This record gives sequence, structure tokens and C-alpha cells, in this order.
Amino acid sequence: MNWAHKDLLGTRELTREEVLLILDSAESFKEVSRRDIKKVPTLRGKTVITLFYEPSTRTRVSFEIAAKRLSADTVNISSSSSSSVKGETLKDMGRNLQAMQPDVIIIRHSMPGAPHILAQSIDASIVNGGDGAHEHPTQALLDLFTMREKKGRLDGLKVTIVGDIAHSRVARSNVFALTKFDTEVTVCGPPTMIPPRMEELGVKVEYNLDEAVKDSDVIMMLRIQKERGGVSYIPSIKEYATLFSLKERHFALAKDDVIVMHPGPMNRGVEISDEVADGPYSVILDQVENGVAVRMAILFLLLGGES
Amino acid sequence: MNWAHKDLLGTRELTREEVLLILDSAESFKEVSRRDIKKVPTLRGKTVITLFYEPSTRTRVSFEIAAKRLSADTVNISSSSSSSVKGETLKDMGRNLQAMQPDVIIIRHSMPGAPHILAQSIDASIVNGGDGAHEHPTQALLDLFTMREKKGRLDGLKVTIVGDIAHSRVARSNVFALTKFDTEVTVCGPPTMIPPRMEELGVKVEYNLDEAVKDSDVIMMLRIQKERGGVSYIPSIKEYATLFSLKERHFALAKDDVIVMHPGPMNRGVEISDEVADGPYSVILDQVENGVAVRMAILFLLLGGES
Amino acid sequence: MNWAHKDLLGTRELTREEVLLILDSAESFKEVSRRDIKKVPTLRGKTVITLFYEPSTRTRVSFEIAAKRLSADTVNISSSSSSSVKGETLKDMGRNLQAMQPDVIIIRHSMPGAPHILAQSIDASIVNGGDGAHEHPTQALLDLFTMREKKGRLDGLKVTIVGDIAHSRVARSNVFALTKFDTEVTVCGPPTMIPPRMEELGVKVEYNLDEAVKDSDVIMMLRIQKERGGVSYIPSIKEYATLFSLKERHFALAKDDVIVMHPGPMNRGVEISDEVADGPYSVILDQVENGVAVRMAILFLLLGGES
Repeated sequence: MNWAHKDLLGTRELTREEVLLILDSAESFKEVSRRDIKKVPTLRGKTVITLFYEPSTRTRVSFEIAAKRLSADTVNISSSSSSSVKGETLKDMGRNLQAMQPDVIIIRHSMPGAPHILAQSIDASIVNGGDGAHEHPTQALLDLFTMREKKGRLDGLKVTIVGDIAHSRVARSNVFALTKFDTEVTVCGPPTMIPPRMEELGVKVEYNLDEAVKDSDVIMMLRIQKERGGVSYIPSIKEYATLFSLKERHFALAKDDVIVMHPGPMNRGVEISDEVADGPYSVILDQVENGVAVRMAILFLLLGGES
Repeated sequence: MNWAHKDLLGTRELTREEVLLILDSAESFKEVSRRDIKKVPTLRGKTVITLFYEPSTRTRVSFEIAAKRLSADTVNISSSSSSSVKGETLKDMGRNLQAMQPDVIIIRHSMPGAPHILAQSIDASIVNGGDGAHEHPTQALLDLFTMREKKGRLDGLKVTIVGDIAHSRVARSNVFALTKFDTEVTVCGPPTMIPPRMEELGVKVEYNLDEAVKDSDVIMMLRIQKERGGVSYIPSIKEYATLFSLKERHFALAKDDVIVMHPGPMNRGVEISDEVADGPYSVILDQVENGVAVRMAILFLLLGGES
Repeated sequence: MNWAHKDLLGTRELTREEVLLILDSAESFKEVSRRDIKKVPTLRGKTVITLFYEPSTRTRVSFEIAAKRLSADTVNISSSSSSSVKGETLKDMGRNLQAMQPDVIIIRHSMPGAPHILAQSIDASIVNGGDGAHEHPTQALLDLFTMREKKGRLDGLKVTIVGDIAHSRVARSNVFALTKFDTEVTVCGPPTMIPPRMEELGVKVEYNLDEAVKDSDVIMMLRIQKERGGVSYIPSIKEYATLFSLKERHFALAKDDVIVMHPGPMNRGVEISDEVADGPYSVILDQVENGVAVRMAILFLLLGGES
């Protein structure tokens, strides 16, 4: 099976088979980063641009390392150095970059849909590196990769996502991806952080963390999105931490072999305690490692590689 | 013919033959960016530094991509991360960079003459990536490349440059370059934006856009340089747009096969309307594509390549 | 002899033999940067991250060029683009970077001990690129390399370090390194800039510059660390310049073949006059050139190379 899309804009529009194609390809790339010489010539002579209008370390570095280990040339553009200072529109920026014949542009933008505008304007493959509270597909794909790696399967898993569901692009992309499989997804958080009609996406809603984690195979904790106004939806950080922070006692309620995930960066002491973040159930750093492999797979597939 | 200069500081000091040498070399590099593997080993083991004291996306990225497609190593320095924070002079910065044996330094600086100071201080080849309102030679060279590509010649062309001529390094570098050929160059803009004694540079001055574009082969629109105080020279943006914005009706006055150029980034609705910017006469994105080729040629020639 | 440490955190913990191992390795790398093709495949497929929480041009660029000339892949992270914006701790940042399997992380941080925290948290080799007023080991090693190169030896040298000793990580790293050899080190500055009990580190303290430079083989001038509050320790810059700026007349007091060093960036007219900085005794630009060679040696040794 080959990859059939120019872009990767969200998990919503992917089929179950396409998700599996990415995960399977990522398996073979994971090993590259563990070699002594962490580099394959796959994308030699390709140009990969990261275009980040929001601050990021993890995602930008993960993509940059992924591209470099595939021998692509990388060029970074961050908002502070971008010509948005001069009032250029995103479309003009995209067309101008296109004229320099890049192969892939990875964009992060605070505006939902920005990657889609770019994708329609230009020929290069666009990867959505996070657009507002809309989607963050590569995060969800690395999350599914990690779940499958740890659990041996996706079908049959009970996944609980806890936090500011309404403002989380990670939650949305995970819900879209997980519901393509035979999973049971529960979202949990204070009522102000759960968007209305979530059930229509095929997930259960639970406002009590103890109830939500019951029999979970996977508990995914989200961060309070302070930079997107998240704190205005809760009475106080302290109350939030009391009600929705994952603590060791919750593991007695979940499956014996539950795993704890977090897309990072963590607010330790807010949504997650130190003992949980650094404890034996945590696969948080596996997620980061798998992120490089999944992004290598995505770059590879977008540029015509066969699985 | 070989390139005989250590640096590329402006178009003023180039001969007609040197301009043509660059354009001819760029022809062969243009094809590289259209290959599947966009990379040649020409500058392997060379170090190219971009030293940008003004924000830029287009020019920095164009140079970085040009260098990388020639297999050079690139290092970016932007003002925000530079030790200008610690009060180091440009000369000391240059000498320090020189001690690390770079091959080329591309500098953009708000001070006219900054690249010349650098060029005199150090052995590395200096490329002027824009110095205040003085020169921006690689922009003019890619403009001439595009004119020749579209028109088949430079001699005999009637070129009209419209906008803030007084504060535009693009206008100056184009005037210096074009007047080495048998061209008829007209500059047009409000009187406050036309420097005195422009005619001595061998160009015509016209304050009425309709008159200026008559029989033009090339119309080059410039942007209002808001960041260099351009708006203080006109009563209002609205009045400027009424009098000096290029609109479809102007094409009836120009040659049938006129081309429209703009160095970007465009202020759509100010100096150029959407239908013109995106219309059939526009070669604005060709300019950007050609920019990579011309910059590859310049890096190649400065480092001793033969045409 | 092989390098036996995972990290390079300071010169304090190095043995005399380890210092010499680095200097000897750097000798062979110095030549690489003088070649026409300035690149060796030594670290192909290795990932080197620069993680700079303080602004820097010289040190970051020196490390980046060193890594690239060894064919390593480099990734830059600066504080402005880092997720410290999102409140992530240094430890979490380190663990996350580690999960992406870098080989070396070079960190600069305003907090003394930050590189040590990172080194304990993760497997990658950590290089201290400057931690507060604590250590800056690669600067000291390039200083010793330059002294040995110019003087033919380290043992027997009389080295005078002048300036804000108390707040200078360069002074500390140099004192730790030089006192492993049979050198005579004198520190000189106003009393408010000399920490108490300096003599216990094996150095002499002198408050009078004329006395301090007497018979010196090496005079190392330090910059007033304005960004770390240095100016509050002296009545005025002018008075400081009168008493502690190195001028030509001091050379009559020093050895005939004295060399003048400065870690840069210089405050010309404050701690050093133009005629001294640019004069025949100055080896300041040799220091910068040697910096690349010493950093190549350090990256090489940390990643298992044999001398």
C-alpha cells in the first residue's frame, strides 16, 4: 500500500489503513535512531522547511532531527524572524516558499486551518505541526504508535484522556485517530473544558477522574493550555489539581498494566504528580522517542516512499 | 571568463560582462532545484554564514537553500541572538567570524555600507544581502535574470520602477544594473519619494503612473518601506494607493506582453492589487524561484567556480 | 590514552593529562579548517544539539562550525524559542531531548550547575558552554591551547588575568586549568571584583595593574560583565578604564614576548585599548580560530575518538 495524499493535515481524514501504514513504516525507522550512525540517505537532496508561528522546542526539534536522519536539508523559520513583521499574508508566504521548491513544509500556527490554507495554495507537502486548538496529527500518531508498541494492539483498548479537552488539539487528533479502531475512548475534565456534543465523536464523557480511569489500558493526561487561556475555565489551578491530577492511587482503579501518557511539556504538580510522571507506568519519554520515528515515516511516505 | 572580485557588495561596481556572467551561471543552476534530488556537491566543505541584523525570511531562506543545494555548510546568525547585545562592533564581529574560516558571509544590515566595512576587514567573501536604503544586489540580479528569461534580452527593454524610489535599495541596485545595458529606465512615485538628480543616474523621472507605464516591457512595483519610515513621505496610504497602485487598466497602456515584478513582500491593496499580483502578467513568483538560482551562481562564482 | 568521561562540565575536574589530551587532539583538527574542503567524515550520523539559554554568537557558532566540519548533524535551540515559555523544567527538557537520541548537548545557562543537572539526568554527553559565573571550560582549553602554541609550553609561564575575576566563568576555568601546570597565575582587579580567599586556589592576588603585569608571559584581559551586574562593583567605567585597562605602556613591564588574550567580546576603550587589541602582542583572533579546533577535539573525544 502506498500513501495517497499530498499532505498530512489531520487524523480526521485518515483511514484506519493509512494510520496503520504510518505506524508500520515508523517501526522500521525507530531502529535508525538507535544505531551508532543515525542516518540513512533516503531523503538526500530534499528540502524540508519548518515554519513555526508559535514557540516550540519539542515538535520542531523532533521534525528537524527526523529530517536530518533521513539526510534531507532543513531550513527553520520561526515567527520572530519571519516577514510577518512586514505584514505578509500566510498565502503569500506559502507561495514564496513554494517558488524555492521545498519538498515538505511543516507548519505550526495559532489559527485553526492555517495548514489547510497553505496546502491548497502550494505544491509542497504540508504537515500540520499543530493549528490552534484544532489538530496535531503527528502527536496523535506517535501516541497510537506508543499504545500499540506497549499493548501489542489498538483494537480493544480503553483509553482515557484527561484535561482541557475543549482547547486541546492533541485530544482532538487522538479522538479522531482512536475512533477509527475498536477502542473505547473516555474524555474527562471539568464541564467547562469538555465541549458540548462530544458523544457524537464516538467517545464517552466523564467528569469524575476516579470513574474515568476505571479499567483503563491507557491514561493520557493533557496540560492546562495556559498560553491559550485555559486557566480562565477553572476556578483555580489548585482546585483543578485536586480533582484532575493523576496520582498513584488511581492505578488501583485502572488495568494492572495501564500506561500513562502526556504530550508534554508537563506542568508537574498540576495535571500530573512527580511520582506518576517518573513512575513505572509512565511511557512519556517513549512517546518522545517514537515521535522522531513517526515523523521520519511521515516525511518518507509524503515524499513517495513505499512501505 | 572568471569572476574577479572577492565580494559582491553592489551592482554599481559590476561591469556589464560581470552581470552577464552571473546570469549565465544562474541558468545552469536553475535546473538543479527542479530535479528530484536537488543537490550538487559543488561547495562541499565550504562554510556559508548568514548574518542578518534585520528581520528577513525570503532572502535568508533563499541564500540558505542556495548554499545547501550546493552542499555547503550553513550557519545562521540573527540580530536577536547576536552578541550585538554585548555591544560588539561590526568590525570585531567580522574579525571573529573570519577567525573561524568561513568562505562566504551574507550580511543584511540597516546601515548603508555595513557590508563594505566587513569586506575590508576580512578575507571571506562578503555578499550584501541588503544594506539600509543603499543596495540589494542579489535582488537586482535575480530581477535582471527574470527580465532576460521572459523577454529574451535586456538591451532595448523599457523598464518602469514605481514606488518609494528614495528609500529602496532594490530600486538603486536595479537602476545601477539596468543602466549598464541599453535599457530605458523610468522611475515613478510621489515627488517626496523620488530623490533629487535621479536623471544623473541615466533614468527618466515620471510622477504620473499612467505616463510612466506607457509602452513598458517591465513594470516593477516596490513596497512602501513602512519599517524605514516610508509612510511619513505620503499624505496617506489610501491616497498613495489611488495614485500609484498598479491596476489592470494600466496594462492597456503598456506593451502587450508587459511583465509585472515585485521584490516582495507585497502590501496587497497598497502598491499592487490582487488581480495584478496574481494575474497573467505577474512574474513575481518566477523572481523568487530565480533568486535561488542566482544566489547559487553567486556563491559558486565567489568561491572560484568557472562559468 | 582515551577520554574517560561522559561529559565536559568544567576544567576543575580534569587532570593535567586530560587537558593535554584535548590540546594534542586539537592540534590535528586545526589543520582541517585551513583546508580547501573543511570537512572530515568523523562524526557522520551523530546529532549535536546547542541549547543556549543566554545570548551568544561566538560560542554557539564556534561549536556549530566545529560539529559541521566533523560532519555531525546540528540542531540549535535558543531560549527565545524554547519551551521554557511553557514552564518546562531543565530536567524535563533534558530528558525529552535525550529521548530523541542526541550524542552531545552543549548547554549555556545563566544558572551555575545547570549543565551538571543535565549531565546527571541523561545519557548524552553534556558540554558546558558557560554556566553563570561558574565555568566555561572550552574557553579555558582554547586559551591554554593558544598559550602553548605561542609559547611552546605551559609549564613555567607567568599568566596574569585582569578584570572582574569574581563574576567571570572564564577566569575560574582558566585558574582551574592553569594551576594543574607549573604556572604562576596572578589575578588582578579592583577589590570588589576579587573574591575572598582566591589564594587558596593557588593564585596570587594583585590590585595594581602595573605590578600584576610585571614579567608576565601572558596577560588575559576580561570584559566587564555588564549583563551580570558587573558595573555595580565599580565607581565608574571611566575610573575602571583608568586603573585596569591594558595600554601599550604596560608592555615595557611584561616579558618582551608577552601575549595579550581576551575571551571577547571586547569592550574597546574599557578593559582594553584599540592599539593593544589590534597590536602585535594580541593573539585574540588566534584564540577564536583555536576555539573551533579545540571544540572539534572535544566533540571527537566525547564521542569515543582516540587521540
